Amino acid sequence: MKKSIGAENCLYPSPSVIVGADINGKANYITIAWIGILGHKTIGMAMNKSHYTNQGIRENKTFSVNIPSVNFLKETDYIGMVSGKNIDKSKLFTNFYGSLKNAPMIEECAINMECELTEVVDSRTHDIFIGTIVQTYCEDKFMTNGKVDLTKVQPFFFSMYEPAYWSLGERIGKAWSIGKEYL
Amino acid sequence: MKKSIGAENCLYPSPSVIVGADINGKANYITIAWIGILGHKTIGMAMNKSHYTNQGIRENKTFSVNIPSVNFLKETDYIGMVSGKNIDKSKLFTNFYGSLKNAPMIEECAINMECELTEVVDSRTHDIFIGTIVQTYCEDKFMTNGKVDLTKVQPFFFSMYEPAYWSLGERIGKAWSIGKEYL
Repeated sequence: MKKSIGAENCLYPSPSVIVGADINGKANYITIAWIGILGHKTIGMAMNKSHYTNQGIRENKTFSVNIPSVNFLKETDYIGMVSGKNIDKSKLFTNFYGSLKNAPMIEECAINMECELTEVVDSRTHDIFIGTIVQTYCEDKFMTNGKVDLTKVQPFFFSMYEPAYWSLGERIGKAWSIGKEYL
Repeated sequence: MKKSIGAENCLYPSPSVIVGADINGKANYITIAWIGILGHKTIGMAMNKSHYTNQGIRENKTFSVNIPSVNFLKETDYIGMVSGKNIDKSKLFTNFYGSLKNAPMIEECAINMECELTEVVDSRTHDIFIGTIVQTYCEDKFMTNGKVDLTKVQPFFFSMYEPAYWSLGERIGKAWSIGKEYL
Protein backbone atom coordinates (compact mmCIF):
# COMPACT_ATOMS: atom_id res chain seq x y z
CA MET A 1 0.00 0.00 0.00
CA LYS A 2 1.41 3.36 -1.09
CA LYS A 3 1.63 6.08 1.49
CA SER A 4 2.41 9.80 1.26
CA ILE A 5 5.81 10.67 2.70
CA GLY A 6 5.70 14.44 2.11
CA ALA A 7 7.15 16.42 -0.78
CA GLU A 8 10.49 14.64 -0.62
CA ASN A 9 12.93 14.65 -3.54
CA CYS A 10 13.70 10.97 -4.10
CA LEU A 11 15.70 11.26 -7.32
CA TYR A 12 18.72 10.12 -5.32
CA PRO A 13 21.34 8.94 -5.76
CA SER A 14 22.57 11.61 -8.14
CA PRO A 15 25.98 11.93 -9.88
CA SER A 16 28.60 13.42 -7.57
CA VAL A 17 30.61 16.00 -9.52
CA ILE A 18 32.97 18.91 -8.95
CA VAL A 19 32.05 22.23 -10.55
CA GLY A 20 34.85 24.66 -11.38
CA ALA A 21 34.80 28.42 -11.94
CA ASP A 22 37.33 31.24 -11.85
CA ILE A 23 36.72 33.86 -9.20
CA ASN A 24 38.82 37.00 -9.31
CA GLY A 25 41.14 35.21 -11.71
CA LYS A 26 41.69 32.19 -9.48
CA ALA A 27 40.34 28.66 -9.87
CA ASN A 28 37.73 27.52 -7.37
CA TYR A 29 35.75 24.29 -7.03
CA ILE A 30 32.60 23.03 -5.36
CA THR A 31 31.15 19.53 -5.03
CA ILE A 32 27.52 19.18 -6.02
CA ALA A 33 24.97 16.48 -6.83
CA TRP A 34 22.02 18.64 -7.82
CA ILE A 35 22.80 18.23 -11.48
CA GLY A 36 21.34 16.50 -14.51
CA ILE A 37 21.58 16.00 -18.24
CA LEU A 38 19.16 18.33 -20.06
CA GLY A 39 20.26 17.64 -23.64
CA HIS A 40 22.99 16.11 -25.78
CA LYS A 41 25.21 19.07 -24.91
CA THR A 42 23.19 20.61 -22.09
CA ILE A 43 23.63 20.37 -18.34
CA GLY A 44 21.48 21.87 -15.58
CA MET A 45 22.57 22.30 -11.98
CA ALA A 46 21.38 24.06 -8.84
CA MET A 47 23.66 25.81 -6.39
CA ASN A 48 22.62 27.64 -3.24
CA LYS A 49 23.02 31.39 -3.74
CA SER A 50 25.26 31.59 -0.71
CA HIS A 51 28.01 29.61 -2.47
CA TYR A 52 31.19 31.41 -3.46
CA THR A 53 31.40 29.65 -6.83
CA ASN A 54 28.10 31.13 -8.10
CA GLN A 55 29.71 34.57 -8.32
CA GLY A 56 32.36 33.31 -10.75
CA ILE A 57 29.84 31.52 -12.96
CA ARG A 58 27.66 34.61 -13.17
CA GLU A 59 30.63 36.88 -13.96
CA ASN A 60 32.46 34.74 -16.52
CA LYS A 61 29.43 32.92 -17.89
CA THR A 62 31.53 29.76 -17.96
CA PHE A 63 32.04 26.77 -15.68
CA SER A 64 33.35 23.23 -15.75
CA VAL A 65 31.88 19.92 -14.62
CA ASN A 66 34.53 17.47 -13.45
CA ILE A 67 33.68 13.81 -12.87
CA PRO A 68 35.79 12.18 -10.17
CA SER A 69 36.47 8.45 -9.87
CA VAL A 70 36.03 6.57 -6.61
CA ASN A 71 39.74 6.94 -5.85
CA PHE A 72 39.05 10.69 -5.59
CA LEU A 73 36.20 10.23 -3.09
CA LYS A 74 37.83 11.82 -0.06
CA GLU A 75 38.98 14.84 -2.03
CA THR A 76 35.50 15.23 -3.55
CA ASP A 77 33.86 15.18 -0.15
CA TYR A 78 36.43 17.62 1.20
CA ILE A 79 35.80 20.10 -1.64
CA GLY A 80 32.14 20.10 -0.63
CA MET A 81 32.94 20.77 3.03
CA VAL A 82 34.98 23.96 2.78
CA SER A 83 34.30 27.28 1.05
CA GLY A 84 36.56 29.04 -1.42
CA LYS A 85 35.95 32.14 0.65
CA ASN A 86 38.31 30.68 3.24
CA ILE A 87 40.35 27.98 1.51
CA ASP A 88 42.36 28.31 -1.71
CA LYS A 89 41.18 25.14 -3.45
CA SER A 90 43.23 25.95 -6.58
CA LYS A 91 46.29 24.59 -4.79
CA LEU A 92 44.80 21.20 -4.02
CA PHE A 93 45.04 19.74 -7.54
CA THR A 94 46.54 20.24 -10.96
CA ASN A 95 44.37 22.84 -12.70
CA PHE A 96 44.12 23.15 -16.45
CA TYR A 97 42.16 25.35 -18.85
CA GLY A 98 40.68 24.75 -22.28
CA SER A 99 39.42 26.93 -25.08
CA LEU A 100 37.18 29.05 -22.84
CA LYS A 101 40.27 30.19 -20.92
CA ASN A 102 38.41 30.79 -17.64
CA ALA A 103 36.65 27.51 -16.80
CA PRO A 104 39.20 25.74 -14.58
CA MET A 105 39.32 21.94 -14.69
CA ILE A 106 40.89 19.28 -12.49
CA GLU A 107 43.53 17.10 -14.12
CA GLU A 108 42.97 14.38 -11.49
CA CYS A 109 39.30 13.91 -12.48
CA ALA A 110 38.48 11.24 -15.06
CA ILE A 111 36.33 13.52 -17.21
CA ASN A 112 36.09 17.28 -17.59
CA MET A 113 33.35 19.17 -19.38
CA GLU A 114 33.92 22.80 -20.27
CA CYS A 115 30.63 24.71 -20.36
CA GLU A 116 29.23 28.05 -21.40
CA LEU A 117 26.40 29.44 -19.27
CA THR A 118 23.29 29.82 -21.40
CA GLU A 119 20.55 30.51 -18.85
CA VAL A 120 20.01 31.16 -15.16
CA VAL A 121 16.64 30.17 -13.73
CA ASP A 122 16.03 31.90 -10.45
CA SER A 123 14.61 29.78 -7.66
CA ARG A 124 14.22 31.48 -4.31
CA THR A 125 17.27 30.00 -2.62
CA HIS A 126 19.25 28.59 -5.55
CA ASP A 127 20.71 29.61 -8.88
CA ILE A 128 19.72 27.05 -11.48
CA PHE A 129 22.50 27.27 -14.04
CA ILE A 130 21.94 25.79 -17.50
CA GLY A 131 25.02 25.42 -19.65
CA THR A 132 26.17 24.13 -23.02
CA ILE A 133 29.17 21.82 -23.24
CA VAL A 134 31.78 23.23 -25.62
CA GLN A 135 34.51 20.64 -25.08
CA THR A 136 35.05 17.45 -23.10
CA TYR A 137 38.38 16.06 -21.94
CA CYS A 138 39.30 12.50 -21.06
CA GLU A 139 42.35 10.26 -20.99
CA ASP A 140 42.81 7.09 -23.01
CA LYS A 141 42.98 5.06 -19.80
CA PHE A 142 39.27 5.78 -19.17
CA MET A 143 38.24 4.70 -22.66
CA THR A 144 37.85 1.44 -24.58
CA ASN A 145 37.85 1.50 -28.38
CA GLY A 146 37.54 5.27 -28.38
CA LYS A 147 34.47 5.33 -26.10
CA VAL A 148 34.21 6.37 -22.48
CA ASP A 149 34.17 3.17 -20.40
CA LEU A 150 32.21 3.43 -17.13
CA THR A 151 34.02 0.44 -15.62
CA LYS A 152 37.21 2.51 -15.97
CA VAL A 153 35.78 5.93 -15.04
CA GLN A 154 34.11 4.54 -11.90
CA PRO A 155 31.90 7.55 -11.19
CA PHE A 156 29.99 7.61 -7.93
CA PHE A 157 26.75 9.02 -6.60
CA PHE A 158 25.48 11.07 -3.70
CA SER A 159 22.40 10.28 -1.68
CA MET A 160 20.79 12.65 0.81
CA TYR A 161 19.02 9.84 2.66
CA GLU A 162 21.99 8.79 4.81
CA PRO A 163 23.76 11.06 3.59
CA ALA A 164 26.34 8.94 1.75
CA TYR A 165 28.17 8.18 -1.47
CA TRP A 166 27.36 5.10 -3.51
CA SER A 167 29.39 3.29 -6.16
CA LEU A 168 28.21 2.23 -9.59
CA GLY A 169 27.13 -1.38 -9.93
CA GLU A 170 27.11 -3.50 -13.05
CA ARG A 171 25.77 -3.35 -16.55
CA ILE A 172 22.37 -5.03 -16.30
CA GLY A 173 20.82 -4.71 -19.73
CA LYS A 174 21.03 -3.27 -23.23
CA ALA A 175 18.88 -0.16 -23.67
CA TRP A 176 16.13 -0.05 -26.31
CA SER A 177 16.54 -3.80 -26.49
CA ILE A 178 15.86 -5.66 -23.24
CA GLY A 179 12.31 -4.24 -23.31
CA LYS A 180 11.54 -6.15 -26.49
CA GLU A 181 11.03 -9.19 -24.30
CA TYR A 182 8.08 -7.33 -22.82
CA LEU A 183 6.34 -7.04 -26.18
CA MET B 1 47.55 13.11 -20.88
CA LYS B 2 44.11 14.68 -21.32
CA LYS B 3 42.71 14.85 -24.80
CA SER B 4 39.68 16.59 -26.28
CA ILE B 5 36.92 14.18 -27.23
CA GLY B 6 34.44 16.73 -28.60
CA ALA B 7 31.50 18.35 -26.83
CA GLU B 8 30.25 15.06 -25.41
CA ASN B 9 27.84 14.91 -22.47
CA CYS B 10 29.58 12.56 -20.02
CA LEU B 11 27.28 13.01 -17.03
CA TYR B 12 26.20 9.40 -17.56
CA PRO B 13 24.97 7.21 -16.07
CA SER B 14 21.85 9.13 -15.12
CA PRO B 15 18.79 7.96 -13.12
CA SER B 16 16.37 5.99 -15.27
CA VAL B 17 12.82 7.12 -14.48
CA ILE B 18 9.32 6.98 -15.91
CA VAL B 19 7.51 10.29 -16.37
CA GLY B 20 3.70 10.27 -16.31
CA ALA B 21 1.17 12.75 -17.68
CA ASP B 22 -2.49 12.68 -18.62
CA ILE B 23 -3.21 13.32 -22.28
CA ASN B 24 -6.81 13.82 -23.30
CA GLY B 25 -7.84 12.46 -19.92
CA LYS B 26 -5.82 9.24 -20.22
CA ALA B 27 -2.61 8.27 -18.42
CA ASN B 28 0.56 8.08 -20.51
CA TYR B 29 4.15 7.35 -19.60
CA ILE B 30 7.64 7.85 -21.05
CA THR B 31 11.04 6.59 -19.90
CA ILE B 32 13.73 9.25 -19.63
CA ALA B 33 17.19 9.74 -18.14
CA TRP B 34 17.72 13.40 -18.95
CA ILE B 35 16.69 14.47 -15.49
CA GLY B 36 18.27 15.90 -12.38
CA ILE B 37 17.65 17.29 -8.92
CA LEU B 38 17.53 21.10 -9.00
CA GLY B 39 16.46 21.76 -5.43
CA HIS B 40 15.02 20.15 -2.29
CA LYS B 41 11.65 19.97 -4.04
CA THR B 42 12.70 20.79 -7.60
CA ILE B 43 13.30 18.52 -10.56
CA GLY B 44 14.45 19.44 -14.08
CA MET B 45 14.10 17.20 -17.12
CA ALA B 46 14.45 17.47 -20.88
CA MET B 47 12.15 15.78 -23.35
CA ASN B 48 12.34 15.97 -27.13
CA LYS B 49 9.51 18.13 -28.47
CA SER B 50 8.37 15.27 -30.68
CA HIS B 51 7.30 13.21 -27.66
CA TYR B 52 3.59 12.65 -27.06
CA THR B 53 3.90 13.17 -23.30
CA ASN B 54 5.08 16.79 -23.62
CA GLN B 55 1.63 17.84 -24.79
CA GLY B 56 0.02 16.58 -21.56
CA ILE B 57 2.57 18.27 -19.34
CA ARG B 58 2.10 21.59 -21.12
CA GLU B 59 -1.69 21.35 -20.96
CA ASN B 60 -2.17 20.17 -17.37
CA LYS B 61 0.96 21.78 -15.91
CA THR B 62 1.47 18.62 -13.89
CA PHE B 63 3.52 15.43 -14.26
CA SER B 64 4.85 12.57 -12.19
CA VAL B 65 8.31 11.06 -11.82
CA ASN B 66 8.21 7.34 -11.06
CA ILE B 67 11.32 5.50 -9.94
CA PRO B 68 11.40 1.86 -11.00
CA SER B 69 13.40 -0.88 -9.29
CA VAL B 70 15.61 -3.30 -11.24
CA ASN B 71 12.80 -5.87 -11.31
CA PHE B 72 10.91 -3.37 -13.50
CA LEU B 73 13.81 -3.01 -15.97
CA LYS B 74 12.19 -4.65 -18.99
CA GLU B 75 8.98 -2.68 -18.55
CA THR B 76 10.95 0.55 -18.16
CA ASP B 77 12.87 -0.08 -21.37
CA TYR B 78 9.68 -1.01 -23.19
CA ILE B 79 7.96 2.23 -22.11
CA GLY B 80 10.84 4.13 -23.73
CA MET B 81 10.56 2.20 -26.98
CA VAL B 82 6.93 2.82 -27.92
CA SER B 83 4.93 6.04 -28.21
CA GLY B 84 1.63 6.80 -26.52
CA LYS B 85 0.48 7.97 -29.94
CA ASN B 86 0.21 4.31 -30.94
CA ILE B 87 0.13 2.28 -27.73
CA ASP B 88 -2.20 2.73 -24.75
CA LYS B 89 0.36 2.53 -21.95
CA SER B 90 -2.29 3.20 -19.29
CA LYS B 91 -3.27 -0.48 -19.54
CA LEU B 92 0.18 -1.82 -18.81
CA PHE B 93 0.23 -1.09 -15.06
CA THR B 94 -1.88 -0.10 -12.11
CA ASN B 95 -2.32 3.67 -12.35
CA PHE B 96 -3.10 5.86 -9.38
CA TYR B 97 -3.61 9.57 -8.81
CA GLY B 98 -2.82 11.88 -5.91
CA SER B 99 -3.90 15.34 -4.86
CA LEU B 100 -3.18 16.91 -8.26
CA LYS B 101 -5.80 14.62 -9.83
CA ASN B 102 -4.15 14.58 -13.28
CA ALA B 103 -0.55 13.41 -12.74
CA PRO B 104 -0.83 9.63 -13.23
CA MET B 105 1.55 7.41 -11.26
CA ILE B 106 2.57 3.77 -11.48
CA GLU B 107 1.73 1.59 -8.48
CA GLU B 108 4.45 -0.92 -9.50
CA CYS B 109 7.24 1.70 -9.18
CA ALA B 110 9.05 1.97 -5.84
CA ILE B 111 8.72 5.75 -5.58
CA ASN B 112 6.35 8.26 -7.15
CA MET B 113 6.77 12.02 -7.11
CA GLU B 114 3.80 14.16 -8.03
CA CYS B 115 4.93 17.47 -9.55
CA GLU B 116 3.58 20.84 -10.61
CA LEU B 117 5.15 22.42 -13.66
CA THR B 118 6.77 25.71 -12.69
CA GLU B 119 8.83 26.64 -15.75
CA VAL B 120 9.54 25.55 -19.30
CA VAL B 121 12.94 26.47 -20.72
CA ASP B 122 12.93 26.26 -24.47
CA SER B 123 15.92 24.61 -26.09
CA ARG B 124 15.77 24.20 -29.85
CA THR B 125 14.85 20.51 -29.91
CA HIS B 126 13.73 19.86 -26.32
CA ASP B 127 11.32 21.12 -23.71
CA ILE B 128 13.19 21.57 -20.46
CA PHE B 129 10.50 21.13 -17.82
CA ILE B 130 11.16 22.35 -14.29
CA GLY B 131 8.72 21.18 -11.64
CA THR B 132 8.03 21.35 -7.94
CA ILE B 133 7.30 18.17 -6.00
CA VAL B 134 3.99 18.45 -4.14
CA GLN B 135 3.79 14.92 -2.77
CA THR B 136 5.88 11.74 -2.78
CA TYR B 137 4.59 8.19 -2.39
CA CYS B 138 6.41 5.11 -1.21
CA GLU B 139 5.65 1.79 0.44
CA ASP B 140 6.99 0.62 3.79
CA LYS B 141 8.84 -2.23 2.10
CA PHE B 142 11.21 0.30 0.47
CA MET B 143 11.96 2.06 3.74
CA THR B 144 13.96 1.37 6.88
CA ASN B 145 13.17 3.27 10.08
CA GLY B 146 10.94 5.66 8.16
CA LYS B 147 13.59 6.58 5.58
CA VAL B 148 13.84 5.57 1.95
CA ASP B 149 16.37 2.71 1.74
CA LEU B 150 18.30 2.54 -1.55
CA THR B 151 19.22 -1.10 -1.00
CA LYS B 152 15.49 -1.82 -1.07
CA VAL B 153 14.49 0.63 -3.82
CA GLN B 154 17.25 -0.62 -6.13
CA PRO B 155 17.05 2.22 -8.65
CA PHE B 156 19.07 1.88 -11.85
CA PHE B 157 20.79 4.16 -14.31
CA PHE B 158 20.97 4.75 -18.04
CA SER B 159 24.16 5.31 -19.98
CA MET B 160 24.28 6.52 -23.58
CA TYR B 161 27.78 5.13 -24.12
CA GLU B 162 26.72 1.55 -24.82
CA PRO B 163 23.70 2.29 -24.54
CA ALA B 164 22.83 0.28 -21.43
CA TYR B 165 21.35 0.23 -17.96
CA TRP B 166 23.52 -0.03 -14.88
CA SER B 167 22.69 -1.09 -11.35
CA LEU B 168 23.55 0.75 -8.15
CA GLY B 169 26.63 -0.47 -6.33
CA GLU B 170 27.39 -0.16 -2.65
CA ARG B 171 27.56 2.53 -0.03
CA ILE B 172 31.18 3.65 -0.10
CA GLY B 173 31.41 6.52 2.36
CA LYS B 174 29.63 8.93 4.62
CA ALA B 175 29.07 12.35 3.06
CA TRP B 176 30.46 15.52 4.69
CA SER B 177 32.58 13.16 6.77
CA ILE B 178 34.96 10.94 4.79
CA GLY B 179 36.63 14.08 3.43
CA LYS B 180 37.78 15.05 6.91
CA GLU B 181 40.58 12.53 6.45
CA TYR B 182 41.82 14.79 3.67
CA LEU B 183 42.19 17.74 6.01
